[in-house]
Amino acid sequence: MLRTLLLLILLPFPLLAQTTQEKVRDYRQAHEHELLKEFTTLLAIPNVASDTQNIRRNAALIMEMMKQRGLNPRLLEASTPNVPPVVYGEWKTPGAQRTILVYAHYDGQPTDPKQWTGTQPWQPVFRAGAIEEGGQIVTLADTGAINPRYRIYARSASDDKAGVMAILTAFSALKDKGITPTSNIKFFFEGEEEAGSPHLGEIINLNKELLAADAWIIGDGPVHQSGRKQVVFGARGDTNVDLTVYAAKRPLHSGHYGNWSPNPAHMLARLLASMKDDDGRVTIEGWYSDAEPLGEVERRAIADAPQYDEELKQQLGIKRTEGGGKSLLELINQPSLNINGFASGDVGALARNVIPTTATAVLDLRLVRGNDHQRQIQRVIEHIRKQGYQVLDREPTDADRAQYPLLARVNARAGGYNAERTRMDLPISKSVIDAVQSTSQEKVVLLPTSGGSLPLSIITERLKTVTISVPIANYDNNQHAENENIRLQNLWDGFEIWAAIMTMR
Amino acid sequence: MLRTLLLLILLPFPLLAQTTQEKVRDYRQAHEHELLKEFTTLLAIPNVASDTQNIRRNAALIMEMMKQRGLNPRLLEASTPNVPPVVYGEWKTPGAQRTILVYAHYDGQPTDPKQWTGTQPWQPVFRAGAIEEGGQIVTLADTGAINPRYRIYARSASDDKAGVMAILTAFSALKDKGITPTSNIKFFFEGEEEAGSPHLGEIINLNKELLAADAWIIGDGPVHQSGRKQVVFGARGDTNVDLTVYAAKRPLHSGHYGNWSPNPAHMLARLLASMKDDDGRVTIEGWYSDAEPLGEVERRAIADAPQYDEELKQQLGIKRTEGGGKSLLELINQPSLNINGFASGDVGALARNVIPTTATAVLDLRLVRGNDHQRQIQRVIEHIRKQGYQVLDREPTDADRAQYPLLARVNARAGGYNAERTRMDLPISKSVIDAVQSTSQEKVVLLPTSGGSLPLSIITERLKTVTISVPIANYDNNQHAENENIRLQNLWDGFEIWAAIMTMR
Repeated sequence: MLRTLLLLILLPFPLLAQTTQEKVRDYRQAHEHELLKEFTTLLAIPNVASDTQNIRRNAALIMEMMKQRGLNPRLLEASTPNVPPVVYGEWKTPGAQRTILVYAHYDGQPTDPKQWTGTQPWQPVFRAGAIEEGGQIVTLADTGAINPRYRIYARSASDDKAGVMAILTAFSALKDKGITPTSNIKFFFEGEEEAGSPHLGEIINLNKELLAADAWIIGDGPVHQSGRKQVVFGARGDTNVDLTVYAAKRPLHSGHYGNWSPNPAHMLARLLASMKDDDGRVTIEGWYSDAEPLGEVERRAIADAPQYDEELKQQLGIKRTEGGGKSLLELINQPSLNINGFASGDVGALARNVIPTTATAVLDLRLVRGNDHQRQIQRVIEHIRKQGYQVLDREPTDADRAQYPLLARVNARAGGYNAERTRMDLPISKSVIDAVQSTSQEKVVLLPTSGGSLPLSIITERLKTVTISVPIANYDNNQHAENENIRLQNLWDGFEIWAAIMTMR
Repeated sequence: MLRTLLLLILLPFPLLAQTTQEKVRDYRQAHEHELLKEFTTLLAIPNVASDTQNIRRNAALIMEMMKQRGLNPRLLEASTPNVPPVVYGEWKTPGAQRTILVYAHYDGQPTDPKQWTGTQPWQPVFRAGAIEEGGQIVTLADTGAINPRYRIYARSASDDKAGVMAILTAFSALKDKGITPTSNIKFFFEGEEEAGSPHLGEIINLNKELLAADAWIIGDGPVHQSGRKQVVFGARGDTNVDLTVYAAKRPLHSGHYGNWSPNPAHMLARLLASMKDDDGRVTIEGWYSDAEPLGEVERRAIADAPQYDEELKQQLGIKRTEGGGKSLLELINQPSLNINGFASGDVGALARNVIPTTATAVLDLRLVRGNDHQRQIQRVIEHIRKQGYQVLDREPTDADRAQYPLLARVNARAGGYNAERTRMDLPISKSVIDAVQSTSQEKVVLLPTSGGSLPLSIITERLKTVTISVPIANYDNNQHAENENIRLQNLWDGFEIWAAIMTMR
């Protein structure tokens, strides 16, 4: 008896009562190579939502991954053809009092392969670290532990096939270790989130009972810049605008006509310059006027979050920030206006001495609670009118050209949506916070809203539910840009976080 | 005797005393098909100066064309390899008191084939009219008169293989008709004018005696917008600048970092906007200060030139012009600042919700007499500094990024040069004016300077000679842009103009 007691005391603690986290870690360590093989196979399929054929290959592979895990997946389709389907599955837990829907998306942002360094977006490779820090391409040994600082470079390695992989692997680990979830679980993998989820509302409408849940738990986005885990209770709304200004109908020799015939690049530069001041504050009338002020809980959460701005500035190589000295977290709770890109004529080797015919910019408008995406676009249009432009939603005709000195075309892209925010003090909110905190020695960062956007209002309005986001990606994952990547440790952490959520009290 | 006299009176006038112009026209009408075949063969060879291999194929074909005309051509090379050669030839006229050098260039501006309508830049095609007016592709019959409104679409159809073709054909016609030139003629075809003539000065230095002439007569540029023929006594100087501004080192998610991390497109927009006011007047300090005012003769020539601005505005589809109401011809006598192109991130289908890392513009600075190209660039740099930028001539280092809130890179492109202008009352000037006037029923337009640029100072300073330009292309030739073309009548006129110059008193 004494010997047994001593033995128990002397044994390493885990053997006494191995936690769910430890069991999930055991599982991952035993299966790292096969899990990465499964993941890179998924990453190798091009996944731009408009690429109809390939997007279905992604859905088919995820179906296969779910079948192998004993789930019984099916596709949820929109009413029109060629829409990327939702891959859906369920796991019923006998006696569970709660149903959670776990969400990730398998489509990715469009990308120009020429911009990638060394490899292609859909040819996943391992690197010893971040490209920006000189991380070279490495080949994994067939067996043995893998350095968790390694990264996988591929489109959607983070955003958001990592979400799909983390959710499905957490489920595998629980099953393998005989751990019973505490909730009924619905799996929901969307295929056109990066296109603005144009059919999500319809698919929810067509499947309202199927998709009902006490909460949708969203697996998307990066952890805090400090590396600390996060729970995020809202996401900004988002909408995009294409803006084009018009000069002469044909390209003109810059010597023979320059500084007489208008230059569209100069026109657009003046127009864009007029939209923000030197501090980056948006000068469009009413821009900040209907943003809902943060409540006390939210303000405290922001104050408790680590201040990481100075380190971030150093890493990004910027000395100056926009926003007149306000912190990144404060600014994320304001609506924003970003130029995603602009173009007129050519630069570099193709540049010629011409006056281009048009200049185009793509604007990204982020919204916070209180903003309406159509109202915010209308403010942009009003601002352009105030600069003297006739604003059209189509190409100008000869009659337009004869009538108006300044012509602009403005088109809102499809799929804009508003911001959403869930109260932090709901029971489900507290359960999720506790679950994520159980996987972390550091205090988990709680954010009222993410800087990024998700079409949460499409969900919450239709299903009268709430959404809570649990991001896992490294913050420097180059999400939406070239050289997107995920750090393996973040993927490993993701398995443990999702297992904790599936087993939360 | 009486019968003979009556016969002479009754005969059409040309038979009595056919003019040189009429003989050249006869020659052209008899050889239209073979001339166009020769011309389109030349147009089919890609001719960007940096395309070393193809540029030599152009030179070789021009050599061949000159040999067939009984000229004895040779290549003038720079001292370094892979420089496009000058194709040179001479025709000595016994007893001539004057030597003229006739100049054209056979290289063309770089171009993006994707921007061309229907056909490719180096696949010459005939169209029934201008693309902008619905001109369809046509196939010529094997024989018979060709509609002179037809156009040839190809890179350098106007700028400036038309110059090469007009000069050589004028010579053929004179020879064929037994007409003796009145000057010794030196033929000089340059191969890197559109690259800024970086080796023209050296080639002149290496061949000073060979290239000495009483005047260089330049065949380049368009006729007046009204269709009236022109003689141009100067050309603006020209220099190009690459300008890049820098934001964070890596592309960032516009939601997570937007309106905190600086947006380079917005920075560049503000910077470019600061360089010109709403009227398009350049606001860079000192921009107009050292332009030499026009003399009395020049001002009268401008006043005599047709006012074509309103018709041009209608054709170009613009209601507003820059320059506060000043006419195009007035503004051409001022230095200009044009944005040839700008780019940051992507627009269109590739646009993503990112903050790009850089934004770039290519500027084109046109200069008038009195300006110095390096001084003008220095003014741009000083202006950028005044906006708070640290101006570099290279990529910023991490140390630069840590030290300076605003970073810009400015590089002047090679090959900038100053403006040049020849007095209109020199004997040679008067001879050229009379020669061109002899081919035209309408009054020839005389311009102190062209809006376009030619490296005339490289010639005049080294050879103590003068330059006079005789353009032939239609003004709507899309020079330097996609869909470059020449109207056949302009090419036909060019033959007659150059024959008149070769036989001028």
